Amino acid sequence: MSIPRRLSREAAQRDGEVVRIAGFLQEYRALGGVAFAIVRDRVGSTQVTLKKGVAPPELFALLADLPRESVVEVEGTIRRSEKANRGSELFPTAIRVLSRAETPLPLGVVDKVGADLDTRFDHRFLDLRKPEVRAVFELRAALLAAFREAYRARGFLEVETPKLLRQGAEGGATLFPVDYFGQRAFLAQSPQLYKQMLMAAGFERVFEIGPVFRAEPSDTVRHLTEIGMLDAEMAYIDGAEDLRGMLEEVVRAALGSVRRSLTEAENPLADGLPELAAPFPRIPFETAEAWLGRPGAERDFGTEDEKAIGARVEREYGTPFYYL
Amino acid sequence: MSIPRRLSREAAQRDGEVVRIAGFLQEYRALGGVAFAIVRDRVGSTQVTLKKGVAPPELFALLADLPRESVVEVEGTIRRSEKANRGSELFPTAIRVLSRAETPLPLGVVDKVGADLDTRFDHRFLDLRKPEVRAVFELRAALLAAFREAYRARGFLEVETPKLLRQGAEGGATLFPVDYFGQRAFLAQSPQLYKQMLMAAGFERVFEIGPVFRAEPSDTVRHLTEIGMLDAEMAYIDGAEDLRGMLEEVVRAALGSVRRSLTEAENPLADGLPELAAPFPRIPFETAEAWLGRPGAERDFGTEDEKAIGARVEREYGTPFYYL
Repeated sequence: MSIPRRLSREAAQRDGEVVRIAGFLQEYRALGGVAFAIVRDRVGSTQVTLKKGVAPPELFALLADLPRESVVEVEGTIRRSEKANRGSELFPTAIRVLSRAETPLPLGVVDKVGADLDTRFDHRFLDLRKPEVRAVFELRAALLAAFREAYRARGFLEVETPKLLRQGAEGGATLFPVDYFGQRAFLAQSPQLYKQMLMAAGFERVFEIGPVFRAEPSDTVRHLTEIGMLDAEMAYIDGAEDLRGMLEEVVRAALGSVRRSLTEAENPLADGLPELAAPFPRIPFETAEAWLGRPGAERDFGTEDEKAIGARVEREYGTPFYYL
Repeated sequence: MSIPRRLSREAAQRDGEVVRIAGFLQEYRALGGVAFAIVRDRVGSTQVTLKKGVAPPELFALLADLPRESVVEVEGTIRRSEKANRGSELFPTAIRVLSRAETPLPLGVVDKVGADLDTRFDHRFLDLRKPEVRAVFELRAALLAAFREAYRARGFLEVETPKLLRQGAEGGATLFPVDYFGQRAFLAQSPQLYKQMLMAAGFERVFEIGPVFRAEPSDTVRHLTEIGMLDAEMAYIDGAEDLRGMLEEVVRAALGSVRRSLTEAENPLADGLPELAAPFPRIPFETAEAWLGRPGAERDFGTEDEKAIGARVEREYGTPFYYL
C-alpha cells in the first residue's frame, strides 16, 4: 500500500481515483450480495461497499470476523454515489488490519446505549473516540488558538511564567506544597506577580494561557485543583473602561474566529456559540442588588446570586457576557 | 491628555500631528538653548526636543529633576527631522510624571556598564527593561506562535494534558512529589502517556507546548527542573522517515515564520536564526562513531560526543539540525 493515506473528507472528493484510507471499523453489515463497512477517522467516516463478484472474496470473511473499533487500512476506488449518505463510497481492493480490537468492548463508541461515568473514565481512550467528545477537544483547541491570536493582534506578548515557586502570589491558603530536593516549594496559583513585574519592566501588554493550581478542597462542580487559565495585563490605560473595552474586543474576536473554524471543520458545537452584541452590558452593583431584592446590602455575591444575575442579563440583553 | 496614546513607531509617522506618547525616561541632556529627552516604550523610543522659548519653561526643570527610568507621558507635536536619529522629534507641550524612579538605580538599563548576575536577578524588572533582554522574550513568543501554527496547519490538534498526576509516565526517578490534600501526587515529567491515549482514541495528530518538571539535581547548564516542552505525536505512518519529514517541515516552517515576524518587529535576533536547507542530513550511527574515532563501540553518546558530532555536521553540511 504505497499510495498516500487520505482522510475521509479528502478521499470523498477523489471520484474515480484509487485511494487509501485508515481508521476504526465502526460498523459492518452484510446483506446478501452486498456488504457495507463504515471506517471512521479523525475528520469523519467513509462508507466501504463490498459487492459480491467485485470485491476480493476474502474481504467479506475478514470484516465479518473483525471486532468493531479495530484499526484498518482500506485501499480501493472512490465513486460518487447519491445513495451513500456521505456522497461517495469506496470499493475496496485490499484491507489490512493494523490492530484488532478486544471483545467485548467495554463501551460503545457510536452506540445509543450510554455507559456510566466510571466505565467511561476507566476506558477513556474509547470514550474519546466518540465524535461528540472529540468535538469538545476541538472546541478547546480552537479557543486556545483564537484567544492567542486575538491578544497577539492587539500587541500583547505571550509569556510563560514559572509554575514551581518558592512562594505563592496570593497568600498561602490555596497552595500545593512540592518537595523540591528536600526543600519546600509551591505550585503557582496565578501568574499575577510575574505579570506585574513585566509591567514594571515595560512589556506593557502580556498574556499567558497555561496551567495553575489551587488547593481548594471543594466538592462543587465550580472548583478544580488544576485549571487552564488565561491571564492578561495591560499598562498605560486611562481608566477601567479601557480594560473592559479591550476584553470585549478580544472575546468577540476570539469567539467569532472559533465559530468560523468550527463551522469549517463541521463541528456541531459551532452552533452553540453565543452571538455577541457590543458593547457588553455594564450592570452597576446597585442594579444587581436591586434585582436580588436587597438594595444597599453591600454583600458579596455568591454562586446563586451570580446565577440569578446572569439569567436576568441573558433575559434582558440576550447575552451571556456582561460587566458587573 | 485625552488624545490616544501612540507607540513610538506609530508616533514617528504622524508628521505635524499632536500625539501622546508614554514610556521610561531613558536620557535627558540640556545643551544651552535646547534639551533632549529620550522616552522608551515597548517598541522603541522617541526623541523629545525642548527649545527655549518654544517648550513650556517648567518642562526643563521637571525633566532635569526627574530620575532616569521614571515613567512619563508626553504630549506635543511630531515633526520629521533629518537630524534626529529616529527620523522625527516630538516638541512637547505637556509632560506628566506617572511614576518617579527611585535613585540611585541598582543597575543601568541602556548603560554600557554591566551589572553582576545577582544584581540583575535581584532587580529583574529593571534588567528586563533592556531592549536586548526583551528581544529574547519576543523571540520566545514568536517561536511559540510559529510552532503552534506550523503544527495546526498540518492537522495537529493542540491539547493540554494534566500536570498534576497520581503517577509518573516514565518511571519515578525524576518526579517531584506534591502534597495533594495529604495524599501523594507528582508533577508531570512528560505528556507521553496522554499523547499515546489520544492516539488510541483516534486523534491521530496532537501536539502540546507546556511546562514539564524533572527532579534532576544537576549542576550542568543543560538541565532545568521546569522546562517548556514541545511534544507531538502522529499516527498512521509508514515508517520513521514520515516522522523525520514532518518534523523537518515543521521546524523549517516555524523558523521561517519567526524570521519574518522578528524582522518586521526590528528584533536584532532575527539575523541569528539559521537558514535551513532541506532535507536535514541523516547521519547514520556508524558514521558518527567513525567521526568520534571509535567505530563499532556501540556506546551511548554523551554531551561531549554530541557537541563534536554537531560541530562536524555544521562544518560539513552548514546546518545545526540533523538526524542521528
